[in-house]
Amino acid sequence: MKAAMYYGKEDIRVEEVDEPETRPGTVKIAPAFNGICGSDLHLYHDGPIPPAPSADQPHPLSKETLPVVMGHEFSGVVEELGEGVDGLEVGDRVVVEPLMVDGTCPACVAGKYNLCEQMGFIGISGLGGGLSERIVVDRRWVHPVGDLPLDQAALIEPLAVALHAVKHAGAEEGQTAVVGGAGPIGLLLAAVLKARGLRVIVSEMSTARREKARDTGVADVVVDPAKQDLAEVVRTETEGAGADVAFDAAGVGVVVTQLLDVLGPGGRLEIVAIHTKPYELDITASLTMQDRVMGASIGYANDHAEAIELARSGAVDLAPFITGRIVVDDIVEQGFRQLIDNKEHEVKILVSMR
Amino acid sequence: MKAAMYYGKEDIRVEEVDEPETRPGTVKIAPAFNGICGSDLHLYHDGPIPPAPSADQPHPLSKETLPVVMGHEFSGVVEELGEGVDGLEVGDRVVVEPLMVDGTCPACVAGKYNLCEQMGFIGISGLGGGLSERIVVDRRWVHPVGDLPLDQAALIEPLAVALHAVKHAGAEEGQTAVVGGAGPIGLLLAAVLKARGLRVIVSEMSTARREKARDTGVADVVVDPAKQDLAEVVRTETEGAGADVAFDAAGVGVVVTQLLDVLGPGGRLEIVAIHTKPYELDITASLTMQDRVMGASIGYANDHAEAIELARSGAVDLAPFITGRIVVDDIVEQGFRQLIDNKEHEVKILVSMR
Repeated sequence: MKAAMYYGKEDIRVEEVDEPETRPGTVKIAPAFNGICGSDLHLYHDGPIPPAPSADQPHPLSKETLPVVMGHEFSGVVEELGEGVDGLEVGDRVVVEPLMVDGTCPACVAGKYNLCEQMGFIGISGLGGGLSERIVVDRRWVHPVGDLPLDQAALIEPLAVALHAVKHAGAEEGQTAVVGGAGPIGLLLAAVLKARGLRVIVSEMSTARREKARDTGVADVVVDPAKQDLAEVVRTETEGAGADVAFDAAGVGVVVTQLLDVLGPGGRLEIVAIHTKPYELDITASLTMQDRVMGASIGYANDHAEAIELARSGAVDLAPFITGRIVVDDIVEQGFRQLIDNKEHEVKILVSMR
Repeated sequence: MKAAMYYGKEDIRVEEVDEPETRPGTVKIAPAFNGICGSDLHLYHDGPIPPAPSADQPHPLSKETLPVVMGHEFSGVVEELGEGVDGLEVGDRVVVEPLMVDGTCPACVAGKYNLCEQMGFIGISGLGGGLSERIVVDRRWVHPVGDLPLDQAALIEPLAVALHAVKHAGAEEGQTAVVGGAGPIGLLLAAVLKARGLRVIVSEMSTARREKARDTGVADVVVDPAKQDLAEVVRTETEGAGADVAFDAAGVGVVVTQLLDVLGPGGRLEIVAIHTKPYELDITASLTMQDRVMGASIGYANDHAEAIELARSGAVDLAPFITGRIVVDDIVEQGFRQLIDNKEHEVKILVSMR
């Protein structure tokens, strides 16, 4: 079968590989659509870093070295059920929660498997990926999506990231939230917050991204923090009370500072983006004097069913976030290249195998 | 009447002042015992900083300039009730929640009056203090303590600080907590955590303070972080799971780092101490990758009744934390001086007027 294999920095090859075989407790899926994620871009441009294996260091859970099949945000159709699998039928539309976990570390034992000590990702660390004609995965990770269109279903994975963060932050109906950054995760955070009945203010420097946040209806208010005083806008919008909660989907220190500034008494900042530089936190001024809380979250655990329901019920409309559709042979030029050169206008580009 | 007046840096005078008069809605109290707090020491050694007024800048709520009566951690006996005051009787033992708030700012409107924009403290910002023969305060701030001995009652104020932090952190029965620092607030945090049914590990470099934490029974385990690997001890004590929650009662960056290290997956750090230096936070490694949360809290709001009940019921025994009793005329030599020169051995020194 055909698969997009990741060999390392700037080296992706679409080639013929053996089709995986269904085993007891597993499900064979024909992937339909696969979203390109920021971590795929990093792997392509910067080369393999964990949780990807290297050419000679296998991932501890998959035991695989490079090359590995790419693709971890994908939907597909069930093609074959392994022995003992129930709750699924051949022909079902599904998404894969693309994880591999050891199951025995303290985090796994506590049910917080997104924090597994050895955590790997299907499509990054091995065990196949969405960019292939067939994949076989453990039943545990397969979630039926009912009648949700397969293209939208490919966005369930990043939607689960956003949902996990919103739940981690304890954001509640009737509150006001500020989202810093309107890339794919920022937009999906805003969408989940709107679906939960919050008022959403999105802060984003890119005009195109602000327009996307406004036109999709996920933002009640959009702010350009380069030209407007974000804290002042939030104060006005909340009649002086400040925001209840803020989400950093930008990953830069200045945005963290801006978001701390918009919080009202007892407010909560949730960091969703990855930060590559340390942040100089004035604990007393930024947190203590206002009983504030700063949390951060990664991935998802037991969030997929709820994310699917948000999309199926129409509470979150994923369709407007699909901005491109390409075939796997064009993944570098029309996928990775496009997401870098034209990132203000793209949200999610879907890749199919043919 | 006699009162200890704060004139400024290293200038406290015990002198005769006018006795305050009861007004409608207020209560006249004869203070019994007054604890010396870290902020009293700061005011004495470093001079007035807000919320203390200066000699020419009045506090916005009290409208008073220096000198002001000192003392904000105190118990006393009701001597006279102003018109319209109910729920109290002459002769009742009480404590004062020593606050002044504007009542109209967003925090006050939200009931989070500890975060009031103009926040002042009785005994620091004006409106009298516990170090006087009589004080008149608004009924709102007077809490009856029933049969709780008046000396222990003087510790209700710092106990309310600890209780507020424990509630803010969401610490729950059956969890394991690590407390960094066993000064007065660290010990009271440990006491509240024990009373709530947590297992408590106290980390403290001072041998005398570790002994106090162990001998009073507020710590299940004490650790000297200079000689022991705190994270390793916590892992062993929790069978690898890590702590659910940790409290910084030290106020130095290295302790924050140590406490982040002891947390298990999804753990919560609560900062209770004041930090005078910024903390370099590695957001991704310290928080994100483990779904961690870092909160901070200040003071108390609607916590006094519960703090009093903890002490009255015996769930928290405040008696062992009283390490000295002096009269007001000796406050500098036997109070402030002693708390600095012999701070490892002192927890709370109580001052009475005669």
